[in-house]
Amino acid sequence: MAMKVGSQTFTFPSRPVLTGWATVSGPKEGQGPAGAYFDKIFPDLTMQQKSFEKAEQLMMITAVEIALEKGGVAKDAVDVFVAGDLLNQIIISGYSALKVGAPYLGIYGACSSFCEGLFLGGLLVDGGGAQYVVAATSSHNCTAERQFRYPTEYGAQLPPWAQHTVTGAAAVVVAARGSGPVLELATVGKVMDLGIKDPYNMGAAMAPAAADTIFTHLADTGRQPGDYDLIVTGDLGRVGRELLVELALRQGHDLSANYRDCGEIIYSREQTENAGASGCACSALVTLGLLFNQNYRRILVVATGALHSPTSCQQGDSIPAIAHAVSIEFPKGGQ
Amino acid sequence: MAMKVGSQTFTFPSRPVLTGWATVSGPKEGQGPAGAYFDKIFPDLTMQQKSFEKAEQLMMITAVEIALEKGGVAKDAVDVFVAGDLLNQIIISGYSALKVGAPYLGIYGACSSFCEGLFLGGLLVDGGGAQYVVAATSSHNCTAERQFRYPTEYGAQLPPWAQHTVTGAAAVVVAARGSGPVLELATVGKVMDLGIKDPYNMGAAMAPAAADTIFTHLADTGRQPGDYDLIVTGDLGRVGRELLVELALRQGHDLSANYRDCGEIIYSREQTENAGASGCACSALVTLGLLFNQNYRRILVVATGALHSPTSCQQGDSIPAIAHAVSIEFPKGGQ
Repeated sequence: MAMKVGSQTFTFPSRPVLTGWATVSGPKEGQGPAGAYFDKIFPDLTMQQKSFEKAEQLMMITAVEIALEKGGVAKDAVDVFVAGDLLNQIIISGYSALKVGAPYLGIYGACSSFCEGLFLGGLLVDGGGAQYVVAATSSHNCTAERQFRYPTEYGAQLPPWAQHTVTGAAAVVVAARGSGPVLELATVGKVMDLGIKDPYNMGAAMAPAAADTIFTHLADTGRQPGDYDLIVTGDLGRVGRELLVELALRQGHDLSANYRDCGEIIYSREQTENAGASGCACSALVTLGLLFNQNYRRILVVATGALHSPTSCQQGDSIPAIAHAVSIEFPKGGQ
Repeated sequence: MAMKVGSQTFTFPSRPVLTGWATVSGPKEGQGPAGAYFDKIFPDLTMQQKSFEKAEQLMMITAVEIALEKGGVAKDAVDVFVAGDLLNQIIISGYSALKVGAPYLGIYGACSSFCEGLFLGGLLVDGGGAQYVVAATSSHNCTAERQFRYPTEYGAQLPPWAQHTVTGAAAVVVAARGSGPVLELATVGKVMDLGIKDPYNMGAAMAPAAADTIFTHLADTGRQPGDYDLIVTGDLGRVGRELLVELALRQGHDLSANYRDCGEIIYSREQTENAGASGCACSALVTLGLLFNQNYRRILVVATGALHSPTSCQQGDSIPAIAHAVSIEFPKGGQ
């Protein structure tokens, strides 16, 4: 039964286990540093589907199916399917839920959805009576860019602080028992808005929210950054990551030793356009692909989301942002 | 600590209490049968804001503030703010969360968001360590119609099965203790899609999902329709309500005695255009406004949501739908 610690952090004393997970990506991500760990890499962006939306949906469904298979869980044993994506009315998640066939909770936290889903998965398993929850998220470069900015076919020139939306999907099985990494606790973020209005500059918009969630998490738990082998933010990119490091220093936290950003990790230096990567799949692919295959004891994943819409930007509003953090422990020799 | 009963139903043994709630509406809803119970009625659709989106946001914030005041809960005592609306990237909820200032979970279940929020509120309070959760939802006729169909200013003619999107917002304080109606249990719905492609005909698209959730709820709990003083669906409207009654009869359930649809209740017969009302606020306003002021012992609220987007409709996809149910008990003489 979950308990609240400090102001925004929830513990999961029953120690829900991530018994299965899967990563599916587009070609560019597959060629990056994490690509060797992905479960499936599609060779092109259309994935033989008639629309980019259908391609994204195929990625999410594929991720769910592989995660269930790896976790040894039958589709009809899934108590709740929790999913979110970037598209209007999160249609990727809704249409995928139809195919998954499990009771469904749709979430929207933009690129923070990965951690929001993990939090709800932990909550449902820890104190909610669920045995198996599948949390999934996805993004597709061509669906997101068309919706939020311009269709990629237009070839619009990007500013140096722009980030490349990741094409990929990921799913995790959160289970009441079994072996695997443990969902230890989660910090639910607050919405922050420091006035950034440029929809290309999401790193700057999201950095204060990431900083707030990390500082709150450390205060709530009485931990230091060094208590984690690694702290990763979701998709701040180069600009946002630099801002976060500076914000942390001002608060007396030195993150230089063990902090990185998934948006800077997922593509190699040669692949990196502008300030790095973004998208719901960014933190999910890096965490489940690359980080789950390292020799860590405990990591803090801080997925960051920009909560604007094209309508709000066109109406002159600034970009509110949020970040949710989850602490994941890797027991040695199985759980 | 919540438990799962049957295939899709979750119980809340600690009996979370709805200690405060608020209903805010536009002028048309205020003139309807439930209007006398609303906490605030705006006299026009712009609400002195520079956009309809800002007006909708004002309604949601107003609802949250009144609900907290009525529940005697300070803003900074809110453990989690759970909110969802119809707009792309649920911007009403995101921008409202900034003003509420509490840890925030964004949800998207279209017009089922009211019950999805109540379910998560119950889960967070019952087994999640939260003391106070505020669940909120909203819809605005002019923001929703512009986004999903045509701007209302175009005066597009509507088919007889179309529904009028409700202008309103509602918020509920779910608390670990206190007095008020009790959140007894909830049934999380599955996504259903029987092939309806007409975005005006949401009643028909949603009726199978509502039927499935109601039948599953009755099977999971071993209850009969008569165990509830009233079963209400969210916003099926006349067309969807008639379909649901027929679907129920085929399954051996006679709903004629105690089943109604909020989409048919919120406007008077003289006010009703076409098939009734829809929108996230529809089930919330009727439930919290009208039904909470009747002499019921127990009601089942089944909020229904159509999970399409304009993009999915334009791409020729049919409309998937979902329904989540919550059972609310009204203890006599306080809890």
